[in-house]
Amino acid sequence: MAVYTDITDDELAKLLADFDLGEPLSFKGIAEGVSNSNFLLETDGGRYILTVYEQRTNPKDLPFFLGLMRWLAEHGYPCATPMADRNGEALKTVCGKPCAIVSFLPGMSVRRPSVAHCRQAGEGLAKLHLAADGFAMSRANDLGHAAWASMFAPLKGQAEALKPGLAAVIEGDLARFQAGWPTGLPSGVIHADFFPDNVFFHGREFAGAIDFYFACTDALAYDVAVALNAWCFEPDGSFNVTAARAMVAGYEAHRPLSAAERGALPILAHGAAMRFFLTRLHDWRAAPAGALVKPHDPLEYERKLAVHRSAPDLVLFGAVA
Amino acid sequence: MAVYTDITDDELAKLLADFDLGEPLSFKGIAEGVSNSNFLLETDGGRYILTVYEQRTNPKDLPFFLGLMRWLAEHGYPCATPMADRNGEALKTVCGKPCAIVSFLPGMSVRRPSVAHCRQAGEGLAKLHLAADGFAMSRANDLGHAAWASMFAPLKGQAEALKPGLAAVIEGDLARFQAGWPTGLPSGVIHADFFPDNVFFHGREFAGAIDFYFACTDALAYDVAVALNAWCFEPDGSFNVTAARAMVAGYEAHRPLSAAERGALPILAHGAAMRFFLTRLHDWRAAPAGALVKPHDPLEYERKLAVHRSAPDLVLFGAVA
Repeated sequence: MAVYTDITDDELAKLLADFDLGEPLSFKGIAEGVSNSNFLLETDGGRYILTVYEQRTNPKDLPFFLGLMRWLAEHGYPCATPMADRNGEALKTVCGKPCAIVSFLPGMSVRRPSVAHCRQAGEGLAKLHLAADGFAMSRANDLGHAAWASMFAPLKGQAEALKPGLAAVIEGDLARFQAGWPTGLPSGVIHADFFPDNVFFHGREFAGAIDFYFACTDALAYDVAVALNAWCFEPDGSFNVTAARAMVAGYEAHRPLSAAERGALPILAHGAAMRFFLTRLHDWRAAPAGALVKPHDPLEYERKLAVHRSAPDLVLFGAVA
Repeated sequence: MAVYTDITDDELAKLLADFDLGEPLSFKGIAEGVSNSNFLLETDGGRYILTVYEQRTNPKDLPFFLGLMRWLAEHGYPCATPMADRNGEALKTVCGKPCAIVSFLPGMSVRRPSVAHCRQAGEGLAKLHLAADGFAMSRANDLGHAAWASMFAPLKGQAEALKPGLAAVIEGDLARFQAGWPTGLPSGVIHADFFPDNVFFHGREFAGAIDFYFACTDALAYDVAVALNAWCFEPDGSFNVTAARAMVAGYEAHRPLSAAERGALPILAHGAAMRFFLTRLHDWRAAPAGALVKPHDPLEYERKLAVHRSAPDLVLFGAVA
C-alpha cells in the first residue's frame, strides 16, 4: 500500500512517447502492491497499470515475470498483459527505475473469503497452472524449502524475542523438512503468492489474478498449499476444513491431484507456512520505527505453523473425505 | 498522498446498498489528497471517487462543500458531482467516518506549469467564480487574514528555529495586514487552494478542478492571489512575471478585475503567502519523526513572503503592462 516513486506529467509523457497507447487522460498513484509502485493510467486508447519496480524486485527476474504474464494472457488466463512499445519492448525505464505498462484487469478482491470464494480461487489456481503449461522460461524458487535454513539463521534471536523457545521449535520444523520434503511431484510455473488480495472476483465468480512477482518454477501442489494457508484460516487462527475442501475440490475440477500430491499436502502446507513466517519475521525486524506501512504480523504465520505441526493428518486438507 | 482508512469489500457493499450505482467492478485506494482518503470505484454504471473525510475536515462543513460541488456541476463547471443515495443524501458514513461518492473527473495535473497552463488556469478560476455566483450557502474563511495573528502566536519559536529573526519579520507583515487589509472587494465563493495539483488539463486545455475542501466565502481577488503564488514562482524562488500576466489575462478574459481589485493584488498575494506559510509551519512541527508523508517545506512560502515584502509594485502581478 504505497507509492514510492513520484512520476511527473513530463516523465510520463516521455515514457508514453515510445508507445502507441494514445494521449494520457488521467494518472493516479494507487495503493496496490507492497513492494512496487503502481499507477492507474487512462489514455484515449484504454486503461493501464504502470508498475515501477522498486529495490525488492530483482531486475534480472523481470523478463520472466513479464514473459509469463504475456504467455498467460495469450493462453486465455485472466491477468494483466504487458504492453510492448514500438520496438516490441515491455520492460522500460522511468525515473531511472525499471517499469512496465500492463493492461488494466477489473475485479474486486475479498477480505473475508466465503467457502464459495475458496472454491472459485481453487479453480482459478488450477487454470493458472494449466495455462502456464508450455511456457518456456523458468525461475528457481529463491524463497523455497532449500533456502529456509539459511533464511532463518540470522533471525533466531528475533524468533526468541517474539516467543521464548520458538527458535528451537523452528529448528525442529526445518529438520523435518530437511528429512522428508517431497520430491518428484509434478512441477511447473507457480504463482507462489496466491493470497486473497491478489485474486479478483466479479461478484462471486473468479475474475483473474494479479501480482506475479513471486512466480517461479516449483511443485504445483506447493502453490495449492500456499493458497490453503492464505484462504482457509479463520481470524481466530483455526483452520476451516470446509473452506479447504472447497478449495481443493475447485482445483481438482480442472486439474486432479495425484495420490503423491494429496499425500504431500500436509508437509507442503507446513513448509508454505514457514516461508511466509520467515519473510514476515525478516520484514518485522527491518521495518523502521514509526513507519506508516506496518509489516504483516509474523505471529499470524507462527500460529499456522503450530496448526500444521500438531495436526498433520490428511483430513485437515480436505484431501480425504 | 495517503489512504488512512481501510475499506473492505463487505463495508463497500454495505455503503453501495443505499445507492443505485450498480455492482462494484473495481475498487482501489488512490494517492490523491493530503488530508482525506480517496478510492477509485468502478461499477457497471460508471466510475466514481469515494472520499472518506478524516479528522482534518470538519464534518459541519461537509454540506457546504458537497452542496457547492453539486451547484457548480449543475451550472456547467467541470468538477466532480456528489452522488445522492436513494434518499437524496450525498453525505454518508463508512467505517464510522463521514464519506461521499462523487463522479470521476478525468484529467491530468501538471507539475511544472507553462505560461500557457497559467493562462488556462486563470480562465478556469474565473469560470469557477462565475459558476458559483448564486450559490446560497456561505462559509467563513477560517484560514483568512483575521485568523493569521492567532495562528502565528503558538508558532513563534518554530519560526525562529527555522530562521533566526523571522518571528519579528512575520510580526511586521501581520501589522501591515492589520493596518491595510483591503475591504469592500467583490466577494463570493473561492476555491482557496487552487494549486496545480488541484487543476486538471486535457493536453494544454483546462479540464476542471478538484478538492473543494478549503472553499469558503471571501474576496474573489484573494483566490487569484493564492493562485499567482502557487503557479507563477520558479523552482529557484523567483517570480515569473510573464506567467503571472498570463494568469491574470486568462482570468480577465471571463471576469475583468475592478481597479480596486487590481490595486489590492500585491497585499492579497503577500497575505496569501502568509496563509500557506503558517499552515505549513504548523504541519512541519506536527509531523512525527520518520513519517513517510513529508509535509510541505514552510521555507518555500517564507521565500514567497520575502518576494512580496520587498516588491509590492503592481507590475509584479502583471496588472499593469
